[in-house]
Amino acid sequence: MSASNAQWRLAARPVGLPKASDWEYVEEPALEPGDGQFQVEVEYLSLDPAMRGWMNEARSYVPPVGIGEVMRAGAIGRVTESRHPHHAVGDRVSGMFGVQRYAVSDGRGVRTVDTSLAPAPVHLGLLGMTGLTAYFGILDVGRPQPGQTVVVSGAAGAVGSVAGQIARLKGCRTIGIAGGPEKCRWIVEELGFDAAIDYKRGELRSELRRHTPDGIDVYFDNVGGETLDEVLRRIARGARVVICGAISQYNATEPCGPVNYMQLLVQRATMTGFLVFDFAERYDEAIAELAGWLRAGQLQSREDVVPGGLEQFPEVFLRLFRGANTGKLILKLAE
Amino acid sequence: MSASNAQWRLAARPVGLPKASDWEYVEEPALEPGDGQFQVEVEYLSLDPAMRGWMNEARSYVPPVGIGEVMRAGAIGRVTESRHPHHAVGDRVSGMFGVQRYAVSDGRGVRTVDTSLAPAPVHLGLLGMTGLTAYFGILDVGRPQPGQTVVVSGAAGAVGSVAGQIARLKGCRTIGIAGGPEKCRWIVEELGFDAAIDYKRGELRSELRRHTPDGIDVYFDNVGGETLDEVLRRIARGARVVICGAISQYNATEPCGPVNYMQLLVQRATMTGFLVFDFAERYDEAIAELAGWLRAGQLQSREDVVPGGLEQFPEVFLRLFRGANTGKLILKLAE
Repeated sequence: MSASNAQWRLAARPVGLPKASDWEYVEEPALEPGDGQFQVEVEYLSLDPAMRGWMNEARSYVPPVGIGEVMRAGAIGRVTESRHPHHAVGDRVSGMFGVQRYAVSDGRGVRTVDTSLAPAPVHLGLLGMTGLTAYFGILDVGRPQPGQTVVVSGAAGAVGSVAGQIARLKGCRTIGIAGGPEKCRWIVEELGFDAAIDYKRGELRSELRRHTPDGIDVYFDNVGGETLDEVLRRIARGARVVICGAISQYNATEPCGPVNYMQLLVQRATMTGFLVFDFAERYDEAIAELAGWLRAGQLQSREDVVPGGLEQFPEVFLRLFRGANTGKLILKLAE
Repeated sequence: MSASNAQWRLAARPVGLPKASDWEYVEEPALEPGDGQFQVEVEYLSLDPAMRGWMNEARSYVPPVGIGEVMRAGAIGRVTESRHPHHAVGDRVSGMFGVQRYAVSDGRGVRTVDTSLAPAPVHLGLLGMTGLTAYFGILDVGRPQPGQTVVVSGAAGAVGSVAGQIARLKGCRTIGIAGGPEKCRWIVEELGFDAAIDYKRGELRSELRRHTPDGIDVYFDNVGGETLDEVLRRIARGARVVICGAISQYNATEPCGPVNYMQLLVQRATMTGFLVFDFAERYDEAIAELAGWLRAGQLQSREDVVPGGLEQFPEVFLRLFRGANTGKLILKLAE
């Protein structure tokens, strides 16, 4: 007799912010694993801005989630049944298990979670895709040099908070852009950013001028929109603009492009997009380095774990777009 | 007794297309060269889209032309008086002599023109800044590999026509975007582009799809605007977008940015701006290679020499923005 598997499926392609009718809540018997497969009971769901993009019918780096399909999401869970050679019952694993209580996997893209390094949620944040995205984006694409000025937007978010801390570790003057005084306080006082700019105060241009007198050498962008345009005004010669995300645009019905992109020419600068998946061969090396920094107290990890249970998924997901989370937003499924 | 020096000076900062009242026509006695200087009588004026940017009061790679100053322009002329050790009376020279009949120079940025290689106007085009811009932009920034697909906008313009030909020489499938059937015919039949897209037909999206079935590896952009956005839809994994210019935007009172810039992330692609001046140490090497290709018949040079004389400058300059020129637009000063 199978356990009941609760799922959130995509019911319609959202226009703007996803609304209740874009989702369908389904309960069905959990699948049994076949040969070479295992079953996972999901404990923690990773909530990421990129998920909004997967809901669109658009050419992207992964196929869109189909209408009627379980919503795609990263997660951590415990192996409950196994016919797989490397994943035994009881193992903690992370993978793209989707917004559901039970998933069946053949092990592709699945990593074993070492909770002796850090509690499980950290493996969705600093020691998971989030930390890896920050690591490769800032180091391999941004290539910050000691003494250079690095600006990070979404600096109190999951990826931005890690990217900024790594830039600081590399000896850069690091300025974070975030929304609200509490987030700004956190990134400066707790994470060691050199300065924070609260974009909600509406003084982005003058604050950027004040905090980056010599221009901006590396910009790690998570938000796009007006913020990207204001930063482009201040890039330094040879700057690297790292395109990691554009959360301000994901729900925009009339998205806007960076009007000031010709500053790339004026400053002989580069704007580069990247995807963490392209660095898969170096995940182990990166996680080892991130874990070392964490252990040494040189990096802070913060997870915003919401204990709402699977039922709350549509509502908790929207916190990302309301700027309501600080650090990595995670939904904890009910025991 | 000095000759009379006719000049076009900037009278006002244009809004949109420069109009008559943005210019002032002045005649004054030509300056005499001081020690270490020489005087040039200008014969050919280089008319370039970038000049429009120099007229704005904006942070750019050179200071704006001041109100009341002679308009900045590249030119070729003959040395008429000299107190300079390296430039003798009668020498043909190229440099930033400005929109005037006589200039005085200390030799900085001045090159001696070797008319045994090609007639003087070619030294403003293929063998001048235009050809150098195309050369370094396509080769060093675009880095096209044999068999890759290269798209060039403004492909019948001065820089675009050379950039596309170089891409073709490097074994790339080369598609040009130009305005009107005659320009399209020219780049395919005379210059050897593999295909041309006439953007004025309003079928840019479907034509790009048809001509770039495997996506676009290198895009050399001279125009910006909608064209850039349509190309971004079709960039291939790891594409290089080379930002050379944005002529569609130079007179726009409400400029637009590339809405589809997030394709840079989807395709792990790069958008890079460049300025030819940064390659100054390699000008000689590049001109030698360009001249070799020209001599061997592997590159075509086309100069659109307008014989109107200095008086016609404001009107002839506008041809650039009306798409009225094919190849390098040059104003020949009256004898």
